[in-house]
Amino acid sequence: MIKVGVAGYGVIGQRLADGVALQKDMQLVGVADIAPTLSVRALRERGMPYDLYLVEGADQAKFEALKIPVKGSFSDLVGQVDIMLDSSPGGVGGKNKALYEKAGIKAVFQGGEANSVADVFFHGYANYEKGLGAKYLKLTSCNTTGLIRSVDCLDRKYGVDRVAITIIRRVADPGDYHRGLTNALQMDKAPSHQAVDLMTIMPHVEATGILVHTPVTHGHIITVLAHGKGKITRDQALEAFREHDRIRVVRLEEGFSGNASFFRYARDLGNPRGDMYEIGLWEDSVVESGDNVMYAINIPQEAVTIPETIDAVRAALNLQPDSRSATAETNKHLGLGNWKKG
Amino acid sequence: MIKVGVAGYGVIGQRLADGVALQKDMQLVGVADIAPTLSVRALRERGMPYDLYLVEGADQAKFEALKIPVKGSFSDLVGQVDIMLDSSPGGVGGKNKALYEKAGIKAVFQGGEANSVADVFFHGYANYEKGLGAKYLKLTSCNTTGLIRSVDCLDRKYGVDRVAITIIRRVADPGDYHRGLTNALQMDKAPSHQAVDLMTIMPHVEATGILVHTPVTHGHIITVLAHGKGKITRDQALEAFREHDRIRVVRLEEGFSGNASFFRYARDLGNPRGDMYEIGLWEDSVVESGDNVMYAINIPQEAVTIPETIDAVRAALNLQPDSRSATAETNKHLGLGNWKKG
Amino acid sequence: MIKVGVAGYGVIGQRLADGVALQKDMQLVGVADIAPTLSVRALRERGMPYDLYLVEGADQAKFEALKIPVKGSFSDLVGQVDIMLDSSPGGVGGKNKALYEKAGIKAVFQGGEANSVADVFFHGYANYEKGLGAKYLKLTSCNTTGLIRSVDCLDRKYGVDRVAITIIRRVADPGDYHRGLTNALQMDKAPSHQAVDLMTIMPHVEATGILVHTPVTHGHIITVLAHGKGKITRDQALEAFREHDRIRVVRLEEGFSGNASFFRYARDLGNPRGDMYEIGLWEDSVVESGDNVMYAINIPQEAVTIPETIDAVRAALNLQPDSRSATAETNKHLGLGNWKKG
Amino acid sequence: MIKVGVAGYGVIGQRLADGVALQKDMQLVGVADIAPTLSVRALRERGMPYDLYLVEGADQAKFEALKIPVKGSFSDLVGQVDIMLDSSPGGVGGKNKALYEKAGIKAVFQGGEANSVADVFFHGYANYEKGLGAKYLKLTSCNTTGLIRSVDCLDRKYGVDRVAITIIRRVADPGDYHRGLTNALQMDKAPSHQAVDLMTIMPHVEATGILVHTPVTHGHIITVLAHGKGKITRDQALEAFREHDRIRVVRLEEGFSGNASFFRYARDLGNPRGDMYEIGLWEDSVVESGDNVMYAINIPQEAVTIPETIDAVRAALNLQPDSRSATAETNKHLGLGNWKKG
Repeated sequence: MIKVGVAGYGVIGQRLADGVALQKDMQLVGVADIAPTLSVRALRERGMPYDLYLVEGADQAKFEALKIPVKGSFSDLVGQVDIMLDSSPGGVGGKNKALYEKAGIKAVFQGGEANSVADVFFHGYANYEKGLGAKYLKLTSCNTTGLIRSVDCLDRKYGVDRVAITIIRRVADPGDYHRGLTNALQMDKAPSHQAVDLMTIMPHVEATGILVHTPVTHGHIITVLAHGKGKITRDQALEAFREHDRIRVVRLEEGFSGNASFFRYARDLGNPRGDMYEIGLWEDSVVESGDNVMYAINIPQEAVTIPETIDAVRAALNLQPDSRSATAETNKHLGLGNWKKG
Repeated sequence: MIKVGVAGYGVIGQRLADGVALQKDMQLVGVADIAPTLSVRALRERGMPYDLYLVEGADQAKFEALKIPVKGSFSDLVGQVDIMLDSSPGGVGGKNKALYEKAGIKAVFQGGEANSVADVFFHGYANYEKGLGAKYLKLTSCNTTGLIRSVDCLDRKYGVDRVAITIIRRVADPGDYHRGLTNALQMDKAPSHQAVDLMTIMPHVEATGILVHTPVTHGHIITVLAHGKGKITRDQALEAFREHDRIRVVRLEEGFSGNASFFRYARDLGNPRGDMYEIGLWEDSVVESGDNVMYAINIPQEAVTIPETIDAVRAALNLQPDSRSATAETNKHLGLGNWKKG
Repeated sequence: MIKVGVAGYGVIGQRLADGVALQKDMQLVGVADIAPTLSVRALRERGMPYDLYLVEGADQAKFEALKIPVKGSFSDLVGQVDIMLDSSPGGVGGKNKALYEKAGIKAVFQGGEANSVADVFFHGYANYEKGLGAKYLKLTSCNTTGLIRSVDCLDRKYGVDRVAITIIRRVADPGDYHRGLTNALQMDKAPSHQAVDLMTIMPHVEATGILVHTPVTHGHIITVLAHGKGKITRDQALEAFREHDRIRVVRLEEGFSGNASFFRYARDLGNPRGDMYEIGLWEDSVVESGDNVMYAINIPQEAVTIPETIDAVRAALNLQPDSRSATAETNKHLGLGNWKKG
Repeated sequence: MIKVGVAGYGVIGQRLADGVALQKDMQLVGVADIAPTLSVRALRERGMPYDLYLVEGADQAKFEALKIPVKGSFSDLVGQVDIMLDSSPGGVGGKNKALYEKAGIKAVFQGGEANSVADVFFHGYANYEKGLGAKYLKLTSCNTTGLIRSVDCLDRKYGVDRVAITIIRRVADPGDYHRGLTNALQMDKAPSHQAVDLMTIMPHVEATGILVHTPVTHGHIITVLAHGKGKITRDQALEAFREHDRIRVVRLEEGFSGNASFFRYARDLGNPRGDMYEIGLWEDSVVESGDNVMYAINIPQEAVTIPETIDAVRAALNLQPDSRSATAETNKHLGLGNWKKG
């Protein structure tokens, strides 16, 4: 039984904790945070399903005043686990690393950290084997994680050598007030980092792309133009996407009219927090252009990296020898792919 | 054991089904709809926790093609229940009434129907006793339901004789594409129907108000200026609000920065669909103005009417003799008020 | 002196009237509408710079009550002009055509009409010569007009044989309340009609694309991946774009952060209505991908089709023999390109 | 001829310059800024209708590289004028004051500065006489300026002793990317500063209020519940509002559906930048509540303070002896009230 801790109980940290708790071969020892945020207050109102540890600098008196039970310090947590999943705000993970090194434990960092924090820049499907036994891994960001799922899916089956992407980025998460955008589409300098990151993970693919921020909160949409080693037809692409347990192929006529439909559907499914681990892929978006195939995917930014982060635990601790077996194990515990069998 | 059916498995219908299923003294016989919407597809993917019946005009072949199990016809459902909760699209409920009359069963309609469809225009706190034994009841709309909760709360304790409200209305639900608004605040003709409806339910209160539509999806905000028979102080108002099991008093510094915070908090609580039954009330918004007290509330439009609708079942079937005991029973099964005891 | 009338004094019609009024070789006889809309009331408050004619079905008494001077009927207008610019709501232009035919005059329709209404589907740069002497022309839609400007610009200089586009569409105009979208990105079925229309106008180019609606009002953004007959470098593309009088090449560091910056800049320039005729093109967006060049443009949807519509008048009436001379004349009167000389 | 300078050529500064330039008894000497912002670039593209001076810290080389003509330093500007209109970013005006004192000139600051910067907190209608001969005046903020216009209008005619307001605040200006809000309504701590400021300007009125931020860019909407010394009827209120040259009474049926309609109408009027100096007031919003009258106004945040700022120049330099004559002079040059005579 692998012992796992989570640092930073925010948007990602909460979902990492939930995801790890579902893995039958992992034990979630606890979560760490610094302040009695809304998420921490919710944890208390739920009756503390996860033990809470306080990172250095936390004001313990505040937690006491709010009757939020504290199990121990961050060091206490680090001392009990085999691996930490660090979803602290960007930059903090790098500082935490010193503690992990001192304790001799492994760690997986999220996309907000500098690449230099890790030995391996990781994706559960595209380069699982590179992560085997690694000490420090950094996951791709939410957009890159979902994008690579789809490109790797085609690459594995047909070979892909070039992609050009347009990222229509949601600018804030539900509940954010500090990074909004109002009635504007904002441009980033091209090429987008997601295209550059894809080339790091999949060095045989040439990638470029443009990112535009949009004032919505429910899921990025990415259009991908992929060039195969040979021509990839629309039907071939769809066949590959349909077989993938972390891709959900949908149609407009079913009611999946846009990014908000996935969120609505996940809520109606009764998924915790209305989350969806799968990226969505519209069958109606898939078209051919010369030798290229073009398609649009939906990236549920709050939850999409959870499965690949759990894959990273499997790689770091050599739980499974290859991507196929590791992702299958993660998917089984998260219930991914079940809906196809229904 | 009261047998209950739900007509219309949409935003409200799904939540009515969930709410009834939690009442220990009620049995949810099934839900009815006309088309394989996203919500119906989600019901199937969840393994049909509720039996599905098809209303007249449904294309049964479509359901078969999608392998969605159908238990029977709308008449079959109506024939088995004591009372129907009708959350069909506006106007359809009025037509369904003929079926209910023929079957000799009672029904509770939602706010979208004409007042004439019902014998009693109902609110679980403000006029429960009027609903006792009634055959056809219509619930107040989401805004009015939440507004009356707060006004009745003050009225019950201190006496209220006049209110003036400003409704800052969310224009669409998450997942809506057909009734949005983009970069505009839209005015309605005053007085708003919510003020008029409040006077119907609480005839001793004079009410007026202005409604403005805003381009958001998470919760209406209403500011209320209430005039007491005697002066109601800020502290008195807060004391009354804090005692109410369907009002959640919060503070900005806790992280409840706006309407989206309640949605985020409910998701973090693990509430199904990220729903909250309580209205939110900001302690920081409560101010005095002469003899008046002014405050702001948050109305979670998707779920707020569920408790009062269940109260209506209790009234119609004489399950409890008065508002106090009926709302207490509803609250107990929905877990409302527990968080204060934690 | 060419005599011109405008049918439909809405978002496009007002701007057509303004644009024609600036052409030294054209005379704006008047504009026609059916109701005292805000735009017509504004025309009156400005002192009727353009004469107003009423189309059939208009309630003349309403105009009298509001003291809005009416010059005559739609037939009166049609009887005085050489050509009508029809910017009536979609479908109405088709009906108006019978009047134009009867009067023996020519007409230019906007993108909302069916292609069958016209003899030629027209773009001022890409197929001006096809419009020479034509009786009925239909302009490309706002997105297609701007898109073709940029593709034709590359094609003319280097040759282009394939494009793949992603349209990030603004869903409503400033002041719209009836077609908004709130917190959602909405997908259209691919390929988008703009890609199909491009192929009609430029038959030697293969085009496809995906369109996503976004909740903003200031300008569509389109990303274009263009494949040249030979490789087109980033520098070559920028050189061509910079020479074009209807393309404005900008940089993020100048303050052109997104689509709203163009609107702000046009307002600061003192342009009537804060309009801009040019499409924007971000230098920072231009990247190479294999043999392809990728870039992002901004389409100011309210004004972008005005220059090409005036080009259509020039073609229909044989005012200039070719695209080069016709667009130069239109640009001169609209002041396009002056800013480069400053 | 009064000589006027403007410090800070941003959203407000540009409009102050335009407004002063229209006053026949004032001369705009020039405007000052620190960087080649989009607005400064637009000034150059327009051919420098206003002379530009550089404040300390400006990088002159940048202006030269962009061929933006510079007339002199900030001190040069200050040395030539009788009064400065300071619309620098909040806090900078306070620092500039030392320069104004040294030069022995007067100044009017905008709402973003601390009250302590000025001798008089000023509104052109409500306390003009307090500003007579004053050295340093600070204008009320945009919301407060518009709010006071309407309350003073009723107060002057009927007497007002209490108001309660709800401010539905637009969160960003068109073209802003740095202070947006996405799919959220954000609460402020009550009472809002606008209510407090109103009491400073109109000490005989008791005021309170709640402010909610909304994700739009076109105009704040404020609902006002005003208590008269005697009862003010709906008709009386409307009569007063209709007589006011800086209030535009409109109706929903005319097409003024919300805040975006005023912006659209001002654009259609051909107003520079699509600006409107008047606040809008919906006839359909005016209702009575006991002795109170309730109504809703639209505040065009970019331009609303311009007339009152010009009034402040008149007061400071004793150009007119009272509010009536001063505001009449300002209105005449800005063309305010003309539309009623049409």
